[in-house]
Amino acid sequence: MMSLPKKHLFDLPDGVIYLDGNSLGPLPKGVAEKLQHAVTAEWGQALIKGWNTCGWMDQPTRVGNMVARLIGAPHGSVVMGDTLSIKVFQALSAALAMRPDRKVILSDTGNFPTDLYMAEGLIRLKDAGYTLRTVAPQDASAAITEDIAAVMLTEVDYRTGRKHDMHDITRRAQNAGAVMIWDLAHSAGAVEVNLTQARCEFAVGCTYKYLNGGPGAPAFIYVRPDLTEHIEPALSGWLGHQAPFAFDLSYTPAPSIERMRVGTPPVLQMTALEHAMQVWDGVEMYDIRTASLALSEQFITEVEARCPDLTLISPRDGATRGSQVSFSFEHGYAAMQALIDRGVIGDFRAPNVMRFGFTPLYLDASDVTAAVDILAQVINDNLWDKPAYKTKSRVT
Amino acid sequence: MMSLPKKHLFDLPDGVIYLDGNSLGPLPKGVAEKLQHAVTAEWGQALIKGWNTCGWMDQPTRVGNMVARLIGAPHGSVVMGDTLSIKVFQALSAALAMRPDRKVILSDTGNFPTDLYMAEGLIRLKDAGYTLRTVAPQDASAAITEDIAAVMLTEVDYRTGRKHDMHDITRRAQNAGAVMIWDLAHSAGAVEVNLTQARCEFAVGCTYKYLNGGPGAPAFIYVRPDLTEHIEPALSGWLGHQAPFAFDLSYTPAPSIERMRVGTPPVLQMTALEHAMQVWDGVEMYDIRTASLALSEQFITEVEARCPDLTLISPRDGATRGSQVSFSFEHGYAAMQALIDRGVIGDFRAPNVMRFGFTPLYLDASDVTAAVDILAQVINDNLWDKPAYKTKSRVT
Repeated sequence: MMSLPKKHLFDLPDGVIYLDGNSLGPLPKGVAEKLQHAVTAEWGQALIKGWNTCGWMDQPTRVGNMVARLIGAPHGSVVMGDTLSIKVFQALSAALAMRPDRKVILSDTGNFPTDLYMAEGLIRLKDAGYTLRTVAPQDASAAITEDIAAVMLTEVDYRTGRKHDMHDITRRAQNAGAVMIWDLAHSAGAVEVNLTQARCEFAVGCTYKYLNGGPGAPAFIYVRPDLTEHIEPALSGWLGHQAPFAFDLSYTPAPSIERMRVGTPPVLQMTALEHAMQVWDGVEMYDIRTASLALSEQFITEVEARCPDLTLISPRDGATRGSQVSFSFEHGYAAMQALIDRGVIGDFRAPNVMRFGFTPLYLDASDVTAAVDILAQVINDNLWDKPAYKTKSRVT
Repeated sequence: MMSLPKKHLFDLPDGVIYLDGNSLGPLPKGVAEKLQHAVTAEWGQALIKGWNTCGWMDQPTRVGNMVARLIGAPHGSVVMGDTLSIKVFQALSAALAMRPDRKVILSDTGNFPTDLYMAEGLIRLKDAGYTLRTVAPQDASAAITEDIAAVMLTEVDYRTGRKHDMHDITRRAQNAGAVMIWDLAHSAGAVEVNLTQARCEFAVGCTYKYLNGGPGAPAFIYVRPDLTEHIEPALSGWLGHQAPFAFDLSYTPAPSIERMRVGTPPVLQMTALEHAMQVWDGVEMYDIRTASLALSEQFITEVEARCPDLTLISPRDGATRGSQVSFSFEHGYAAMQALIDRGVIGDFRAPNVMRFGFTPLYLDASDVTAAVDILAQVINDNLWDKPAYKTKSRVT
């Protein structure tokens, strides 16, 4: 087993215990310098030549391959770009085209809303009688019937950390003839994912959470390699063309995963991500998962022992939980503000969820103990009960 | 009239005359420091709180308002995000929804290919009998007939600089009952645009060319204010929702231009753009256009006098030309490499186009003279005739 945590690879603020890597990962060391170089030496000096000489054009596939290793996907099956919402749209539109005689998209209420919104938008756009059927997460598996074109689920619930059984649901979907799309927003870099074994058709995810790519870092999309050349991209932008610089008047998709590229990639933003990915060198997801479960179990045990007013709403069984733990508490919003004021940064999700992410890259058992000490003080001494903590100005 | 150029506001490499601002604008001074601050002080120290305390969430509309001034659009009518390809898709899908009984999209062969590709993708996706009708640029106006749902044109041709009459074509489109979409990729920051007067329904554009936002800078979309609340976004991402952090399960669009937002914005990339926009403080597009025409006329006159092997393919009349000038030359590819080697950076577009952009923010008459000196030497002394210049490795 490798040595965790790798706290020395991050620039964390003094006095902060950061339990919100599930929302925005912290700054890896060296990213600022790398970005400075990209701005001054690459953009500033190479100017337009940067596309040729600085590796900008290949960056979406180069970084895609870095992400691929962490989600059990082969080289050449993942490409970066756009936002997760756009990648959901790409996967879902391709999936519907693969099942032209079916008109139902199945998802669950634990999905992150933008996935559902993008599906709604696609349905309106196609105007061909499609339906989005949304069930409770625990009913998702049983709801997979033979009228379903695509099953679109987020593996790990953003509020509770509840984790679907990716392999089982994928098998059920495919047995019913449906295409399977997994959103790995709260999985990539957090739990073990093996897309090759899962055999799902598509996966998408973001990189600003557990992959520490920075605010607004680009998203990724995976297409199962045997399908790639059959996908007809709906968002058929020029950089997905087989020969973008031929400037043909009509679209011919690239023969590779590059057909899922759309427009000009965000070079500066992706440079931050590319460098941030280096903290994963030599890291195995098995070790991350093992350590994350240990930290999460410790947190649950200590909080339940010391904060009886908090109720665990995450699954108790680690095997069905991602890398975050949530508790409900009536005054959760104010309590989270009080916690943040004291250097323990988690986040809040309406109506009453206090959410804590455990990221073994930069957290260890002593951090968990210290965080619970402060949490217990905030809750048991009613430190949250101040007007300043109750003003809902936070947007995330 | 203000003082141009403002070369002191840019970090241009020594010994370079940069005539490719129409492809990638150069680095404005201060951007590197601002981005450094966003990485280390904002992301690094504020972490997730940055969304609240560092202005990240409002950045797409804040920067949109900066762009709006340069394209004659009112405050609150422009929002940033994604790529130009995605913005084309948003505008076009919204336009088609506004004319449900019409099935034709009109464009021209001078459009940048990705606009045509995105239209193709949308048509395939809708699978409802839509057609993309593409005519020669000079025939676009006459081709506006009453079966056309949307006219989608790029104002300034990326190869030749040929400039459409925005006001006339918009009026013709609307007289025929069509929705008008303008792509301002080669217009914003280059020529005078007045969207309020033009009355077109939509406009889109990019910011890495004349707006100097850096490689992969985000795109913009304008919606005519009276239409905004009637647009049903096809790419209905969570940040276009009226209350993104309510995490509703179904989509309700924001009442403002924010409904054209999709996913999480690229904060670092947009921070570079936001600072780059400061070079426009106090700059009026009338003055830019006047200076750009003077530089272009000078270049044409001098090249035609001194390089008879080159043939002007841009319109001779400045009123119908954007801020770039193109010449055809049989050995244009090699000649451009030879020029670049000598510090004059333009670019090449197949099959034989040498393209030069004139950006008065950082170019003056002496730069034009110096560039023509070198060009004349390259052409007249056959300096392009070396194997190294003929290897087509350039991607842009």
